[in-house]
Amino acid sequence: MLDSIGFLNEVMGRHPEAISFAPGAPHPVFLDDLDTHHFTDRFLDHLVEGGLSRRQARRLLVEYGPSRGIINELVSHALRRDQGIAATSASVVITVGAQEAMLLVLRALFRSASGQVLAVANPSFVGITGAAHLLDIPLLPVSERDDGIDVDALEAACRTARRSGRHIRACYVAADFSNPGGGRMSLECRHRLLEVAEREDFLVLEDNAYGFTADAGDELPSLKALDGGGRVVHIGTFAKVCFPGARVGYVVADQQVENGSRLLADELAALKTMVTVNTSPLSQAVIGGMLVEHGGSLRELSRQKAQLYRRNLDQLTTALDSHLPDVGAAGIHWNRPEGGFFVRLHLPVPADDDLLEKSAAKYGVLWTPMAPFYLDGGGDRQLRLSCSYLDPDQIDTGMRRFAAFLQKEIIR
Amino acid sequence: MLDSIGFLNEVMGRHPEAISFAPGAPHPVFLDDLDTHHFTDRFLDHLVEGGLSRRQARRLLVEYGPSRGIINELVSHALRRDQGIAATSASVVITVGAQEAMLLVLRALFRSASGQVLAVANPSFVGITGAAHLLDIPLLPVSERDDGIDVDALEAACRTARRSGRHIRACYVAADFSNPGGGRMSLECRHRLLEVAEREDFLVLEDNAYGFTADAGDELPSLKALDGGGRVVHIGTFAKVCFPGARVGYVVADQQVENGSRLLADELAALKTMVTVNTSPLSQAVIGGMLVEHGGSLRELSRQKAQLYRRNLDQLTTALDSHLPDVGAAGIHWNRPEGGFFVRLHLPVPADDDLLEKSAAKYGVLWTPMAPFYLDGGGDRQLRLSCSYLDPDQIDTGMRRFAAFLQKEIIR
Repeated sequence: MLDSIGFLNEVMGRHPEAISFAPGAPHPVFLDDLDTHHFTDRFLDHLVEGGLSRRQARRLLVEYGPSRGIINELVSHALRRDQGIAATSASVVITVGAQEAMLLVLRALFRSASGQVLAVANPSFVGITGAAHLLDIPLLPVSERDDGIDVDALEAACRTARRSGRHIRACYVAADFSNPGGGRMSLECRHRLLEVAEREDFLVLEDNAYGFTADAGDELPSLKALDGGGRVVHIGTFAKVCFPGARVGYVVADQQVENGSRLLADELAALKTMVTVNTSPLSQAVIGGMLVEHGGSLRELSRQKAQLYRRNLDQLTTALDSHLPDVGAAGIHWNRPEGGFFVRLHLPVPADDDLLEKSAAKYGVLWTPMAPFYLDGGGDRQLRLSCSYLDPDQIDTGMRRFAAFLQKEIIR
Repeated sequence: MLDSIGFLNEVMGRHPEAISFAPGAPHPVFLDDLDTHHFTDRFLDHLVEGGLSRRQARRLLVEYGPSRGIINELVSHALRRDQGIAATSASVVITVGAQEAMLLVLRALFRSASGQVLAVANPSFVGITGAAHLLDIPLLPVSERDDGIDVDALEAACRTARRSGRHIRACYVAADFSNPGGGRMSLECRHRLLEVAEREDFLVLEDNAYGFTADAGDELPSLKALDGGGRVVHIGTFAKVCFPGARVGYVVADQQVENGSRLLADELAALKTMVTVNTSPLSQAVIGGMLVEHGGSLRELSRQKAQLYRRNLDQLTTALDSHLPDVGAAGIHWNRPEGGFFVRLHLPVPADDDLLEKSAAKYGVLWTPMAPFYLDGGGDRQLRLSCSYLDPDQIDTGMRRFAAFLQKEIIR
């Protein structure tokens, strides 16, 4: 995967004029006017309103702090209010992005050489497979379609594993607009996944980086919001809702461990002391200030962003429809995600590095091959289109180029 | 170890009036007036002076950034200038504190179940043993005296390991004022350690958190500065030199790996994408601004701090000498470190939780039992005294109480 990213960056470097549908980066308009000092001060005011002296508040931002974080109350409140997740502050750990949360959760749940397996939606986000690789955790890919992971296949895999003395300990999914697939798990699939998790005794690792992009009124409840049995560990990030440079994420882990003597969150916080000690309180303060400024609501905080990303995604799929009519017969088709940053497109030929090079050099348009996201050698005839950081005119021009590329090189 | 910290925190909570020589925290005087906004702006100016537009500079602080960091040039320059370490920018990775650096280095050097062993100075900093535990890396304790690790014992351990098919892959030391021991490795010991590392083919992991506290003119060259054979991986932190809340550390890893095709630093940066992705550029900016403001010199940046810590340490040992004369015969003695935050004191009886409780409840003075820092069950009759965050009058009062405690409870 790192090789693929390396090649992509290298192609982008050689073709700076190309329009790139490759990076899933946030739109720069949300970064340019970001006044981090203002939000830090806003959080300090919030602490003072909560009873700290100004000196105590300032010191909290520059000292070592609790491993579990200093904005847990704000985050748990926002999750309760916006997503119906019954998260207590004690069940939340603030992490250095979602990535550290994944690493900590995997380390807490898996012990080496124990026959325990991590199931992952296939194709899968590289952060989870990378963290599993770093910890030598065996992976089992389970096919993901546009309406969610194949629960039947997952259940069958649980039984197969058990027969060979292994156990699927957890299953990673991004229910709301996955990266790279772009799909969203149906409500029925969510319920079935939780049932199977209960029956087959595994935890669900829910990564909710893109849920905020759903249209108002069109949201589905997160797996954690549906989690009556304590089967879901919920992971989130402020990289998209706020900004990536904060490197602040969180995990809700309200499972009781060690015979109920403590929460999984406590174990994660203890492990975190051996990874990063604590998440920079300076960074947490900026995120905390952004939450406070928006009434403690993630939804308010992300409203504008959600609108822009939905607009971009609509424009991308509309452009595909209008520039590439009747290409289904030629073996070209794509999904129409209702949110997220990504569209998945199928080709009748391999979407490999050679084809990417041709697309960049002759047509000035870039995309991401999907094969590196697959764990079982699949996906070689798929590509990912991302539109998160582009402007409408770039999407329009880029899609014209992309259509020309497909018409001339694939369909002919 | 976590249990011990928990007990210590609990005792401190029950005796808030006690003077505590337990925490190795920085002195608050350096935190209260810290203007993080100012240093951020200073770093932005530095980037603009370097050719970026103001918008590009600001964006660098809020976007995702390179996994290896954005202040590498400033850090490598400071290490060259202040410590004679021939570090190139490419050999430096900026990490979420020294803790993440340790985790990354251990992960890069050790593969599970490969018979490779990490030697650690004994007693040892809990961060390194914790990271090794997280990665299931076997540990071998090697005795550390006030003048450094026992190199003869280390060399013998290398041979013993080899005979049983194992290999000591690396050895962790804090040459300049270790935590908890407080000792400083002699120049002779440094040279011998590097010789043995070459002969027995292991790497030295040098943790240099406290080197800055040496008196001006009394510094010894770091192991990395003496490292002709590329045997030393050098780890540092800005937690003490700047402030802990930044969570910024660094590692110098200029070893060639994979047949010279890349540096160990490249491998660490790749692994870092699976742990924290990158270190918050917001935090890096504050540290970068502090370096720029002090002419790019770590030594200038830390001059005042070094003076305060030396003064505190002198006062502590002077107070011990004056309040506890002629106690050697009673089996009480302590070392006299020339820097760092810590003094190690030997008792004729176990320095355990019961004794700590008595010290807190009856005498109003706290300290840290040393046994939890030992990997081989040793150290039970030792305690650690830290004076970094106290003021002179607190040290004076605290040492009077501590002397009374020893006189009445131990010597009688």
